[in-house]
Amino acid sequence: MGELHLQYVQELDLATCVAMTDAKGDRSKRPHQQSNPDIYLRIVERNKDGIVVRGVKAIVTGAPYTHEIIVLPTRNMTEKDSDYAVSFAIEIDADGIEMVSREAGRPNDSEAVLSSKYGQATAMILFDDVLVPWERVFLAGEWQFAGTLTESFATHHRLSCIGCRAGLGDMIIGASAKMAEYNGLDPNKVSHIRDKITDLIKYVESFYACGVTSSVFGKETQAGNFCPDPIYANIGKLLQGLHIYDMFKASHEISGGILVTSPYPEDMEIPDVKARLSEYLIGKENIPADYRLKVARLLEDITASYQGGWYSVISIVGGGPPEAEKIEIMRNYDLEERMSHVEKITGIKD
Amino acid sequence: MGELHLQYVQELDLATCVAMTDAKGDRSKRPHQQSNPDIYLRIVERNKDGIVVRGVKAIVTGAPYTHEIIVLPTRNMTEKDSDYAVSFAIEIDADGIEMVSREAGRPNDSEAVLSSKYGQATAMILFDDVLVPWERVFLAGEWQFAGTLTESFATHHRLSCIGCRAGLGDMIIGASAKMAEYNGLDPNKVSHIRDKITDLIKYVESFYACGVTSSVFGKETQAGNFCPDPIYANIGKLLQGLHIYDMFKASHEISGGILVTSPYPEDMEIPDVKARLSEYLIGKENIPADYRLKVARLLEDITASYQGGWYSVISIVGGGPPEAEKIEIMRNYDLEERMSHVEKITGIKD
Amino acid sequence: MGELHLQYVQELDLATCVAMTDAKGDRSKRPHQQSNPDIYLRIVERNKDGIVVRGVKAIVTGAPYTHEIIVLPTRNMTEKDSDYAVSFAIEIDADGIEMVSREAGRPNDSEAVLSSKYGQATAMILFDDVLVPWERVFLAGEWQFAGTLTESFATHHRLSCIGCRAGLGDMIIGASAKMAEYNGLDPNKVSHIRDKITDLIKYVESFYACGVTSSVFGKETQAGNFCPDPIYANIGKLLQGLHIYDMFKASHEISGGILVTSPYPEDMEIPDVKARLSEYLIGKENIPADYRLKVARLLEDITASYQGGWYSVISIVGGGPPEAEKIEIMRNYDLEERMSHVEKITGIKD
Amino acid sequence: MGELHLQYVQELDLATCVAMTDAKGDRSKRPHQQSNPDIYLRIVERNKDGIVVRGVKAIVTGAPYTHEIIVLPTRNMTEKDSDYAVSFAIEIDADGIEMVSREAGRPNDSEAVLSSKYGQATAMILFDDVLVPWERVFLAGEWQFAGTLTESFATHHRLSCIGCRAGLGDMIIGASAKMAEYNGLDPNKVSHIRDKITDLIKYVESFYACGVTSSVFGKETQAGNFCPDPIYANIGKLLQGLHIYDMFKASHEISGGILVTSPYPEDMEIPDVKARLSEYLIGKENIPADYRLKVARLLEDITASYQGGWYSVISIVGGGPPEAEKIEIMRNYDLEERMSHVEKITGIKD
Repeated sequence: MGELHLQYVQELDLATCVAMTDAKGDRSKRPHQQSNPDIYLRIVERNKDGIVVRGVKAIVTGAPYTHEIIVLPTRNMTEKDSDYAVSFAIEIDADGIEMVSREAGRPNDSEAVLSSKYGQATAMILFDDVLVPWERVFLAGEWQFAGTLTESFATHHRLSCIGCRAGLGDMIIGASAKMAEYNGLDPNKVSHIRDKITDLIKYVESFYACGVTSSVFGKETQAGNFCPDPIYANIGKLLQGLHIYDMFKASHEISGGILVTSPYPEDMEIPDVKARLSEYLIGKENIPADYRLKVARLLEDITASYQGGWYSVISIVGGGPPEAEKIEIMRNYDLEERMSHVEKITGIKD
Repeated sequence: MGELHLQYVQELDLATCVAMTDAKGDRSKRPHQQSNPDIYLRIVERNKDGIVVRGVKAIVTGAPYTHEIIVLPTRNMTEKDSDYAVSFAIEIDADGIEMVSREAGRPNDSEAVLSSKYGQATAMILFDDVLVPWERVFLAGEWQFAGTLTESFATHHRLSCIGCRAGLGDMIIGASAKMAEYNGLDPNKVSHIRDKITDLIKYVESFYACGVTSSVFGKETQAGNFCPDPIYANIGKLLQGLHIYDMFKASHEISGGILVTSPYPEDMEIPDVKARLSEYLIGKENIPADYRLKVARLLEDITASYQGGWYSVISIVGGGPPEAEKIEIMRNYDLEERMSHVEKITGIKD
Repeated sequence: MGELHLQYVQELDLATCVAMTDAKGDRSKRPHQQSNPDIYLRIVERNKDGIVVRGVKAIVTGAPYTHEIIVLPTRNMTEKDSDYAVSFAIEIDADGIEMVSREAGRPNDSEAVLSSKYGQATAMILFDDVLVPWERVFLAGEWQFAGTLTESFATHHRLSCIGCRAGLGDMIIGASAKMAEYNGLDPNKVSHIRDKITDLIKYVESFYACGVTSSVFGKETQAGNFCPDPIYANIGKLLQGLHIYDMFKASHEISGGILVTSPYPEDMEIPDVKARLSEYLIGKENIPADYRLKVARLLEDITASYQGGWYSVISIVGGGPPEAEKIEIMRNYDLEERMSHVEKITGIKD
Repeated sequence: MGELHLQYVQELDLATCVAMTDAKGDRSKRPHQQSNPDIYLRIVERNKDGIVVRGVKAIVTGAPYTHEIIVLPTRNMTEKDSDYAVSFAIEIDADGIEMVSREAGRPNDSEAVLSSKYGQATAMILFDDVLVPWERVFLAGEWQFAGTLTESFATHHRLSCIGCRAGLGDMIIGASAKMAEYNGLDPNKVSHIRDKITDLIKYVESFYACGVTSSVFGKETQAGNFCPDPIYANIGKLLQGLHIYDMFKASHEISGGILVTSPYPEDMEIPDVKARLSEYLIGKENIPADYRLKVARLLEDITASYQGGWYSVISIVGGGPPEAEKIEIMRNYDLEERMSHVEKITGIKD
């Protein structure tokens, strides 16, 4: 059925979003142990037309501007969690679906140089007894496969996070170098600036390399599609999440306090203020203060604002937090093999 | 004259701010080398009544709500920079002073739990040929002392930054532990949470310890006041700036995506939405969703917002960036003594 | 009895060592759960003269060259572990005591500049049914106090580790700066060298500051002695253990490959070889190659040899590994207080 | 001529070593500025038969057990350094060549589990007016190409270092996991052990991924061979050098003090001592103490000994230190392109 749905999506050229994260309730309990039975999305009825589902999916990226939702389970399940082992596709405007959306950052802010033009929104999607026709159901109670679906999607998602955030990294590198230049400090020559730019490159290209390696070592599945190598996808995603904070730090060190103390755009529209501040805010000669402010506001937007906060939190916990990635690394890594080498080297075993 | 001014400030119980950071222009040039001669605040005239100053001081914390400004030089000077070696006190409403202020964060945001109540503002202060009477002038051309004034203030300021940010650290620790608890994960028991809380404590208390040590090893000056030990003040400030990013990271890992994807406060006022989301947003049983949201919004406010961005940038570059702190550490550290020990140990010298 | 023993030790000016670490066997089991009942030191008999103990204490620093051993329990105990809750003092040559000693490093190596002169030895002390007279017994079955004794000693020991390793740090700093100088790179001027020297200072002085703060905030006990603050003692010890590796790294980066590729001292005694290599091994003009080799061998000795390995392992796990220190930090830190502040700030509680 | 030499080496199946590192003297000066003109290897004569060279090459890995030496310049040159721009191949036993060799580690130590069997040696090779026939000369005065030769070799070498050290990493991972198991702590289950094993995997596989990516993005040269991508080769080498210290640290934390305090092998041969210690040194039940000691000695050998020190120093400075790798990263990275993206995003340029 998966293949048919893929064809359907491709033929109609649909945009889809993935709804995975449940509300989760008490994080120390499994779905069936929660006091509110709907805190994980579940099947409340099965009839001849399909399944009826109730619950909520949180942090669904892109939900408000896609055609269809693909629902996946958010974790592995036990037999008692069967009603929560559910996966299906559904139109965004199906009966019983409601959405509470929230934008990344504050796109309406006058100084939001990037996020006022480009951005994302996430949504909490409420499923209020929604009927899903059988032909759109991928999983309905087969709890043994919940974990596989979760991990499979997570591996793909983590690989794509790597590429996505490498792009953000390129922008941070470029803007930091530009700020240094506009401050009068050549990023290729001033040693402490060059050192920090190199650090930025090291952060970005090392997690990107994990993505490349995950692709290179990807394997074809029986179904004919490819699955990225999970160890490198998870290490790359893990590094990307950890390093985003180092990237913010380096860009702030390079740029200085102007990122958060530049005058409000509104103040710069008062002619007399603008005239004088435009003189004082010049760094490198012959570069208008306005250029310097534009780059400062870009860096503020992507590293020191609601948008920046969103990037950092989503980088580290979106697509699974570090703890989840570490579990996947250990689950896939052949530790036994390395241990057996040591038995040979030391003569414990031949 | 310093003592008299201190008495005056204490007797009238005045609030003062320190205006130090010049516009700086091209960061690779000294004051007198800049193409715009006013890019560092300077003396443009000396007459029988006092000195007349022109220029701007940027990033003046607290300026809009203090009685007086204390102006200090922002760096060491050479003889050619004499006109820039200037320090004085002036009333906030003296003729020729104008201020362009900017708040830290976005205090008007409905979800700004902390920064809508408590906060700071910085200002750029424009000095448009301001007359400073001689009795309020501390330095006027004595370029040899510019560096001393800068360093002396910086040492005091860096020590105070340490204590200030340790308070922010306590709040991040408390809120992270609270989020874990409300998520159903006991911060004292769940190993990966406990580990990250311990990391947070390690970050905060290690830079705080540098502050304590700087005070313990402080020395009385000839004037009768005390100067903190500069090595520990600078190391503590340096660590505080570097660790704020690690602190944000740990708090995000502990708390999860809710920090930046919780519904807007306005959406939570729609009765039907509020009723349903309040069920779904519960973590630990018996803790209202509203409590969980309040702590999430606090952490968003202080770590993943304009206010959070401000805290990070100001922590790392406010009061001098890491590079300035490293210079001070090396300037004060007795490297020669450690090198001479090595000469003795190795028998190179007796 | 403790006070009397203290007086006795002071009056006779005895050197004592502390024997704490048991063999431990399976680290996932308590003393009484081990298949070998002697794997933790235990009381095998109580009679009118005293207690008879059997077992081993490992990693006893200084044992071979002290007058007396003070035995302490290595962990907290449960009631079933009562026979293992034992503490006493005993002469080094008491009947039934045997020692298998091992030196730190390889003091006999010709190039061991430091460790051939100054060093330590640890020992495994075998207690083969040793009688301890009652007047020398501090604890014999009072399992409730085993944890207190362990923690109390650990806190003192960790504080002293901090001071000890700060001294090692000073030597690494001095020797690294000296190597840079002898390589022709002024440690105060060449930016990447200066940067790494500053890092070294930051590592050493930040953990030392935790020691100072632990002392400043130490508290007098009922017995009249002082106990260091456990939070800062544990954080300082933790940082010291983590940073020793960063210190080795920085010193290697500063110094270069000569640390491990300099000619053997024996080769440098062959006249023809010595004459020619002495020309080639000069770095900075007018500094004899021999000086440069001496400093290189010192750094090799303390960072890249058996002695260096010993310093690193003992720094990180001696006196308790990081995991033990983290437990102590959490046990002593008032997390509840920080959480209650957050309840107030957010209005959850008044 | 390069191709012919390659064929010659392949046909005779010769082992070759690369002699690159000069003695360097004062590191702040170029070759021609040194007071000793021979401190960099140089051409002292050109005649009809070939060139005559004098000087020394240091840290030549494998020199004592190869057939031929390939000499390369160690840095870029200026015109005045022409005599130092020299590259050639020479038989190991040519007239005028003498070698002072030194082994990595202390292969004769009884407890050197690995390094007594497998290991390397480096040598300083003295060139005492050695004649190199013209047909074996690759570069003789063409100073413009010295830098290209250096960088080209460095890129290849750094890529090979990555693969080499990943193997060391596998051994450290396997031995650490084995030590945990023998200590009674399942490396897959005990959370703080599992966490550190995952860290080790992260370190090793992330720098290995940079190597894979460097190969994937390698480019064919005009000569028909392939050159690895220099950015990823340098980042991988840089990470490998920085992380070796973190790897040592994690392995020490996992294993404990036994690494440097286990009894000397000689002591374990005394029957009575062996019998008793063999009981006490058991960790996990049913695993002989001897197995535990073997793994402990392996980890001591590769992380806490002369051999371990050699691995760490050679990892960080061998094949070029971090500062050299950073320079190569910046030299090859297209910073200009990232800066121009920022000009477009901010509207500074269209």
